[in-house]
Amino acid sequence: MKTGSGVRMATGNGENSYAANSRLQEKAILETRPMLRKAIEEVYKSLSDRRSTMVVADLGCSSGPNTLRVVSEVIGAVQFYTRKSEEQRRAVEVQFFLNDLPGNDFNLVFRSLEQLEDLGGKETQPYYVAGLPGSYYTKLFPSRSVHFFHSSYSLMWRSKFELFLTLRSRELVNGGRMLLTFLGRNSEEMMMHGDVSTLFELVAKSLQSLVLKGRVEKEKLDSFNLPYYAPSVKEVKALINESKLFDIEHVRLFQSNWDPQDDLDSDVVLDCASSGANVAKCIRAVLEPLIVDHFGVDIIEELFMVYASVVAKHLEKAKAKYPIIVASLKKARH
Amino acid sequence: MKTGSGVRMATGNGENSYAANSRLQEKAILETRPMLRKAIEEVYKSLSDRRSTMVVADLGCSSGPNTLRVVSEVIGAVQFYTRKSEEQRRAVEVQFFLNDLPGNDFNLVFRSLEQLEDLGGKETQPYYVAGLPGSYYTKLFPSRSVHFFHSSYSLMWRSKFELFLTLRSRELVNGGRMLLTFLGRNSEEMMMHGDVSTLFELVAKSLQSLVLKGRVEKEKLDSFNLPYYAPSVKEVKALINESKLFDIEHVRLFQSNWDPQDDLDSDVVLDCASSGANVAKCIRAVLEPLIVDHFGVDIIEELFMVYASVVAKHLEKAKAKYPIIVASLKKARH
Repeated sequence: MKTGSGVRMATGNGENSYAANSRLQEKAILETRPMLRKAIEEVYKSLSDRRSTMVVADLGCSSGPNTLRVVSEVIGAVQFYTRKSEEQRRAVEVQFFLNDLPGNDFNLVFRSLEQLEDLGGKETQPYYVAGLPGSYYTKLFPSRSVHFFHSSYSLMWRSKFELFLTLRSRELVNGGRMLLTFLGRNSEEMMMHGDVSTLFELVAKSLQSLVLKGRVEKEKLDSFNLPYYAPSVKEVKALINESKLFDIEHVRLFQSNWDPQDDLDSDVVLDCASSGANVAKCIRAVLEPLIVDHFGVDIIEELFMVYASVVAKHLEKAKAKYPIIVASLKKARH
Repeated sequence: MKTGSGVRMATGNGENSYAANSRLQEKAILETRPMLRKAIEEVYKSLSDRRSTMVVADLGCSSGPNTLRVVSEVIGAVQFYTRKSEEQRRAVEVQFFLNDLPGNDFNLVFRSLEQLEDLGGKETQPYYVAGLPGSYYTKLFPSRSVHFFHSSYSLMWRSKFELFLTLRSRELVNGGRMLLTFLGRNSEEMMMHGDVSTLFELVAKSLQSLVLKGRVEKEKLDSFNLPYYAPSVKEVKALINESKLFDIEHVRLFQSNWDPQDDLDSDVVLDCASSGANVAKCIRAVLEPLIVDHFGVDIIEELFMVYASVVAKHLEKAKAKYPIIVASLKKARH
C-alpha cells in the first residue's frame, strides 16, 4: 500500500512501537494486493442487489499501524469497482470486523479509526468497523454472514488448520472468499539456508548460549517447544483439496528478506549489525509471550541482544530470505 | 436481572468502580424487562427462516458490570422462545454489537466476555459479541442490517433525537424494533420536587457555593450550560408520531429513587448522608467530563463533596425520586 493512500500511520520506531513489524505486513500487502483486488472484485460482482452490504473480516488484526491497512485496501478496491460498473451502479456498504484475541488492544485500534476518515473523501463507500474479540479456532460469526475473510501473518500452520477451514466455510456466504498469507517453506526439504526454520534455529542457538552462561537452565531449554511448522505450497494445496470445503483460486510463494527494512534485491547485506537488530525486533514481537511464559521475563533483553548478534553473524555469509505463501480460496459449492 | 442468571459481575465498590452506577441500570432492566422480552419475542417471530440470525445492538453500552446485562437478557429471551416454539424449532444465532464512543474502554468489555460463557450452558443459542465504536448520531450500520436496538440511560433528549430516529430507522430491517430508556419528567410542569431537574439544580447550587468560597469564578458558572432536557411522555409520543418513522408499541414512565442503593418504597430516607454520597457518585459519573472540561479538574473532588451534603440536606425533607421513560418502538412501514 502506498503511504499516500489515506491511512496516516502512527510514528515512532522505538522498541515498543509497531514500526518494526509494520514493514513486514506492508510488504505482504504490496505482494498480495493483486490477489486481494481480484478476490474483492469477485465478491463485489456476486452481490446481486443494487443496494447491498459486503461483510469483511480480518482475522488476527493485531493493533498498530497495519491494522487498518486491510480496511483501507478493501475500501479502495470497492470504490474502484463501483466506479468501473458505472452503468449499473451499486450502493455497496462495507461492514468490517477486526478480529483478534480478547487481550488485543482494541482501544488503540478504535481510537485510530478516525485516521481512516479522510480516505477517499466524500466519494467513499459507506463503511463500518467493528472489533470482534475471540479465537479464530472457534465460531466467530453467524452462518453465511461473511463475504470475505483476510488473514495475514497470523495463521500458524498447525493441526488446527482444518478446523479453521471448517469454521470459515460455515461462516461464508455462497460465493464467499478468503485470502490467507502465512509463513511457508520453499520445498519439501526442511532445513534450507535462509528459511524460516533457520530464523528459529538461531533463537535456539541464542538460548543455548544463555545456558552456557548459566543464565538459563538446560532442562528449561530441553522442555521448550516452538509450536511452529512451515508448510510447502504442495502441502497447502493437498490439505485444502482434501477438505473439499474450498476451491483454490490461486496459490503462490514469494520471498521476503529477513530484515523487513531491507528492500534491496541484491545478495549483499549492507549493515549486518543493523539488520540483525531489525530481525531481532520482529522475532521478539512474535515470540516474547512464549519465551516469557517458559523462561521468565528476566532473560528477555539479554536473549534478543544475543539473538541480534547471532543473526548479524549469520547474515555475513549471505542475505537470508524466508518464503511466504499466499492462498486465495473460494467456498466450494456443496 | 437476577444475580443467578449467568453474568458474574466485577466486584468492588470503590469510587472508581462501576458499582455505584450498576444499581441504576440493574433496576431499569428489571423495570423494562417485560417490554424487552415482548420486543424480542416479536423480532423472533418475524425471523422467517428455520436458520437465521438476529442482529442486536446496545447503543451507549459503556464498560463495566452492566455492559453485558442486555446481552444476557436477550440471550435468555431468545432461549425462552426457542424452547416455546418447539414444534417449529429455529436455530437462531444472535449477533450483538456493543456500541459506544471510541474513547470507551472496549478492552475491559471484551476481557469480561468470558463471564458470559457459562450462561445457559450447552443449550445456549450461538451468540457473537462485537464492539462498535462511534457516535449514534452518525450512521453505525449498513441499511436494514439490525433487528433490535437497545439503549438505556445513554440517550439524552436533545435536538438530535430526530436525527437518531432517522438513522436507526434506516438501519433497522422491516419489522425491526427499538427499546429506549431515558430520563424524563413527570408532567408538562418542569420544576417538581424530586424531579431530575432538581438533581441538576443542586449541582448548580453546589457550584454556586464554590463561587462564594472563591474557588470558582462567577463568569465561569454563568457560562456553564448543562445540555440536558427531560421530556414528558406526551412530548415523547408527539415527537415520535411526527417523525412517522416508528410506531409506538408501548410507552411508560416509572419512578426511580435518587439513591440507587435505596430499594425501599417508603417515603423516609434512612441515612441521608449515605444516600447523598451515593447520589453524588452517580451524578459525578455522568457529569465529570462536562465539569472538568468547563471548570478544570481541580474543583471536582470538592464539588462532589459539597454536592453530597447538599443532596443529603435535600433528602431530609422527603425521599426524592426521578422519572424514567421507556419507549418500545417498531419501525413504521413506508
